[in-house]
Amino acid sequence: MGLARVEVRRGATVESHHVVRVAVADGKGGLRATAGDPELITFARSAIKPLQALPLVDDGVAEKFGFGAAELALACASHGGEPFHIDVALSMLRRIGLDEHALACGAHPPMHEASAGLLRDMGRAPTRIHNNCSGKHAGMLALARAHGWPLAGYHDVDHPVQQRMLHEMTRWSGVAPEDITIAVDGCGVATFALPLSGMARAFGALAAAARRGEKAPAAIVRAMTTYPEYVGGTDRLCTELTRASAGRIIAKVGAEGVYCAAVPGAELGVALKVEDGARRAAEPALLGVLHALGLLSDDEVGVLGRYAEPVVRNTRGEVVGELRAIVELTAHA
Amino acid sequence: MGLARVEVRRGATVESHHVVRVAVADGKGGLRATAGDPELITFARSAIKPLQALPLVDDGVAEKFGFGAAELALACASHGGEPFHIDVALSMLRRIGLDEHALACGAHPPMHEASAGLLRDMGRAPTRIHNNCSGKHAGMLALARAHGWPLAGYHDVDHPVQQRMLHEMTRWSGVAPEDITIAVDGCGVATFALPLSGMARAFGALAAAARRGEKAPAAIVRAMTTYPEYVGGTDRLCTELTRASAGRIIAKVGAEGVYCAAVPGAELGVALKVEDGARRAAEPALLGVLHALGLLSDDEVGVLGRYAEPVVRNTRGEVVGELRAIVELTAHA
Repeated sequence: MGLARVEVRRGATVESHHVVRVAVADGKGGLRATAGDPELITFARSAIKPLQALPLVDDGVAEKFGFGAAELALACASHGGEPFHIDVALSMLRRIGLDEHALACGAHPPMHEASAGLLRDMGRAPTRIHNNCSGKHAGMLALARAHGWPLAGYHDVDHPVQQRMLHEMTRWSGVAPEDITIAVDGCGVATFALPLSGMARAFGALAAAARRGEKAPAAIVRAMTTYPEYVGGTDRLCTELTRASAGRIIAKVGAEGVYCAAVPGAELGVALKVEDGARRAAEPALLGVLHALGLLSDDEVGVLGRYAEPVVRNTRGEVVGELRAIVELTAHA
Repeated sequence: MGLARVEVRRGATVESHHVVRVAVADGKGGLRATAGDPELITFARSAIKPLQALPLVDDGVAEKFGFGAAELALACASHGGEPFHIDVALSMLRRIGLDEHALACGAHPPMHEASAGLLRDMGRAPTRIHNNCSGKHAGMLALARAHGWPLAGYHDVDHPVQQRMLHEMTRWSGVAPEDITIAVDGCGVATFALPLSGMARAFGALAAAARRGEKAPAAIVRAMTTYPEYVGGTDRLCTELTRASAGRIIAKVGAEGVYCAAVPGAELGVALKVEDGARRAAEPALLGVLHALGLLSDDEVGVLGRYAEPVVRNTRGEVVGELRAIVELTAHA
């Protein structure tokens, strides 16, 4: 079955540990490596935003509204709410004749702490535009606008926008719509639950399609590798991993311990789920998996050391422990 | 082996789950019920503060410095940093001729969000006194003062204060000092790792000793049941559980998913550890265990519903899921 876990050490003693399921798939739907049961159902959450951005290219939405690579990257993002993210999100809305009141997502402080502090110091409350999903929402509104669909309720599962998203999930994962469970995401839109293997297949297929130069996949991968700072932001693994791998890898985090990655050059897709939902384990696990697959070198993992083996500090600022991923994948023929 | 887990549901689908180890012991060191392996090592973290406060009574420290029940309760606390907590912590330090600069713990914003906001609105940075452990630290300084030990380095493992703490752990848990692993806690003092069974035995022994009316255990239990608001604070399970059980149960949370409880009337101690360290699972698990043991009624669990089955809300404020504990303990003869 393979094994992937992340140990949290205090001193030399393991204090807590996280069990991680992993699936790795190629561009033809073949499952190449796993840890744990890849057929268990997982909510994809924000990890599939790159797939959800494909219709912006496929349906001519980006062209119609003049969305470039930065806008496409932000549509794929769980952004930090940094000023440059907000600028692009607002500009996307302006280009479709809307403002942030059209967004269905709720307000939360910027994930990027300094940006949250900046807002606080100015005495301003965070608004919907600061939601880490505002780029995705702006893209969904643009999709509705371009097709002439109603804007109201664009986040509801029955709306054509969300049905289009469901179609995209099936198209790339190979999982039939009736086998995809739908619930409500943190930002209010439909979120999809499917076997982890399906998520890996979706990213494997995306990787292969991008390598073949298919228009939408190539455009999304190009956007995410040209503007990795729009995919996450300052001090964010999604951004730093693309930089450290010199654009060989795109990666997207999801809430509750999900991470997906696509490696176009190798035509591989990776999906993982920390079973308990902990973000802190998903980052070391992703880097451990990519290293085990030979997709990241020792040096590259070293550059990403603060994500690969993050330290635990106490309130005195002392290093009192660390996280460490242990990955032994089972290879499939 | 028994089973204890906490499921995190989104809609009707389990999105994440937490595995929990549980040990229940009586006042004579007998293990009465378990889930998972009770012999695995667990850092006790802040859950053992009630044991660490016993020397304040046993060694005449409380009497010498005029610490009453509120001060003893705060010494057992991971408090919220609410104004009434800070007042008592400062008064403890004043009574031993010190101020907050003597505290070895680091600064962090009050855990109680409104109190953190209050501080921010006043333009004041949090200091050591707001550390949730400041009452414990004030107690440790008082212990050093009363014994004439040096104050400097009172948090270091070799200092007589920490050696006294180690002695107390062995005395109540029955685990030999050489079998207790020591590391550095979040607040900078020594923290002890021992089998979960030992932690349950310590709380079982404390419960039985309090019931027999032994001076220090009875005083600590009385302090925690008289002033439960000093043990945690507003909107905190440690506080609400003692209130909801009309003082039958004292409970203490620890970092990384630890919870301990003592039930003097039943002469039972409970210790649990969420294997992945998640606080969100420890609270439903504790209530599930106490309910399974018949120590909390349906009505009492109902009163504590927001801790027993907390809901998951999204950024729009919608309820999109919930947590639920599943507890099947193995009873021991």
